[in-house]
Amino acid sequence: MSDINKLAKFIQKEFNRSLKLFPLPNKPKYLYDPIRYALKGEGKRFRPILVHISGKAYNVDPDIIMKVSLGVELLHCFTLIHDDIMDSDKLRRNMPTLHHQFDISSAILAGDGLFTISQLILNSIEDKPHAFMRYYNETVLEICEGQALDKQFEELDDISIDMYTEMVEKKTGALLGASLCLPAVISGKSNNEIEKIKHIGRQLGIAFQIQDDLLEIFEDENKMGKSLGSDIFSNKKTAIAIEANNLNKTEWDNLICQFDGKNLVNIRSFLISNKVKEKVETLAERYFNLAYNELSNIGFDNDSEIYNIFKMIQERNS
Amino acid sequence: MSDINKLAKFIQKEFNRSLKLFPLPNKPKYLYDPIRYALKGEGKRFRPILVHISGKAYNVDPDIIMKVSLGVELLHCFTLIHDDIMDSDKLRRNMPTLHHQFDISSAILAGDGLFTISQLILNSIEDKPHAFMRYYNETVLEICEGQALDKQFEELDDISIDMYTEMVEKKTGALLGASLCLPAVISGKSNNEIEKIKHIGRQLGIAFQIQDDLLEIFEDENKMGKSLGSDIFSNKKTAIAIEANNLNKTEWDNLICQFDGKNLVNIRSFLISNKVKEKVETLAERYFNLAYNELSNIGFDNDSEIYNIFKMIQERNS
Repeated sequence: MSDINKLAKFIQKEFNRSLKLFPLPNKPKYLYDPIRYALKGEGKRFRPILVHISGKAYNVDPDIIMKVSLGVELLHCFTLIHDDIMDSDKLRRNMPTLHHQFDISSAILAGDGLFTISQLILNSIEDKPHAFMRYYNETVLEICEGQALDKQFEELDDISIDMYTEMVEKKTGALLGASLCLPAVISGKSNNEIEKIKHIGRQLGIAFQIQDDLLEIFEDENKMGKSLGSDIFSNKKTAIAIEANNLNKTEWDNLICQFDGKNLVNIRSFLISNKVKEKVETLAERYFNLAYNELSNIGFDNDSEIYNIFKMIQERNS
Repeated sequence: MSDINKLAKFIQKEFNRSLKLFPLPNKPKYLYDPIRYALKGEGKRFRPILVHISGKAYNVDPDIIMKVSLGVELLHCFTLIHDDIMDSDKLRRNMPTLHHQFDISSAILAGDGLFTISQLILNSIEDKPHAFMRYYNETVLEICEGQALDKQFEELDDISIDMYTEMVEKKTGALLGASLCLPAVISGKSNNEIEKIKHIGRQLGIAFQIQDDLLEIFEDENKMGKSLGSDIFSNKKTAIAIEANNLNKTEWDNLICQFDGKNLVNIRSFLISNKVKEKVETLAERYFNLAYNELSNIGFDNDSEIYNIFKMIQERNS
């Protein structure tokens, strides 16, 4: 296992330990049972890993960094829970989604509770710069805006790749940007430096989401831990759907109509033989490269942990 | 019109003006159209009025107080939107509830957005004590807990008045407590003083909610601006339902079974002739009196604006 893989595993383990030790009340059960359930699904913890590696780079106290990473991951959990309701998704992190396991009301409330606990954890960091909570909450509002665009696009036919990019920059990029920049805010870096590392995280987020769109169709359901093909089923405007539509709208529409929600064979073969897969992979690569260039501009070269964690993310297969 | 009524009207007007001037983006429409809709329903603004009157008493800068009141009211709006989904309510502030006017997904997201904007407004207050955001977010978590208890109680038969009181202290009392204590936190009062005024707000909140339970059955739907009798319909454990159940379970069960969701005549006459109404009114009065006593203990006597605004609330009929 490479050094960066070992480091990522170590952070993941430490993070999960901290999360497990986090004192959650038992009652009322209607609120805390679903919250506990949501935290059982362990996830890959990409965001906490980014927070810790950025925190190391900016020399932030490890206890504070753990709090930041908990705040960021609980925020992520909250958005997943509410998004899963809105998108009628059934599987998440290899478990039934919260509103499937309990009900919609419990899931709405658990999301609200997790978001509030995330705020309380971050509020508890003493002597943080005034701008810290602003950066955090601006991120949340952007995630809401990204989800809103995603829902809007479901009803529209003519979505361009630029519109898609704007949407995923908010929906996914904003939180990856925050994961990298919040430690820089804590360590008192200048606005200019904060904005640069934030922007890098957002480029990484766009690349990450395009990759996710690919994995949702070409990977294994068990590896992904969520229902595959559900983007297609709900007419989500993913990078793949947009490019396939641009190439041959009639055939793509036919394939979607025939899709039973499970068998992806025909869709996969269309995307490969028409080089849609290749085109979308190139798009993801473009955003990874933008991120690498900007990283090297601010002094994080190919030896740095940040660069290597980006590489690890680029090479993931789930 | 009495002096306190004039003052309340003045605050309400100024508050609505500030809210109208609050810069909200236009896009994405999927997020901001529902948020605009939610803010159109003007409400009675009891919470902002309490914030302003408390702020006056604690000599807090009026611009800061306006921000606190906006934060508190947007938080309240957010909880109403999500509660209305959970309770399948159809009418709020004389308008269709948000999930009825739009849909459940839009309403979930609008609530999340409003909560985040509330945080951003409060975050923007400079030089506030470190504890300020903790008080605020602890309040939110308690509101979630209160709503959770409320949902739990729907499935249970043997709810006592003490259990009810614990639930409404969280669900309604916590935010009235925060409305009074957040200005005290801003003005740098001691923990002891903060806790006292907070506790008074919570007693007021319990009284307020018991009154609300009464109004939901005995007032006019147009005056209340929300569907009446929906508590009964969804088997909510209100103070009235608990007392009626204690008195004559068989007859009360029959009345609930026969209730068509609209005609409250039989229910009203049962509650009046069996003195359930009187008993619940006495309970509300008890909590108002507790609040008055505690107010006078910390120097707010019968001449104070805080005392008089409590009186105004006690005498409301909607």
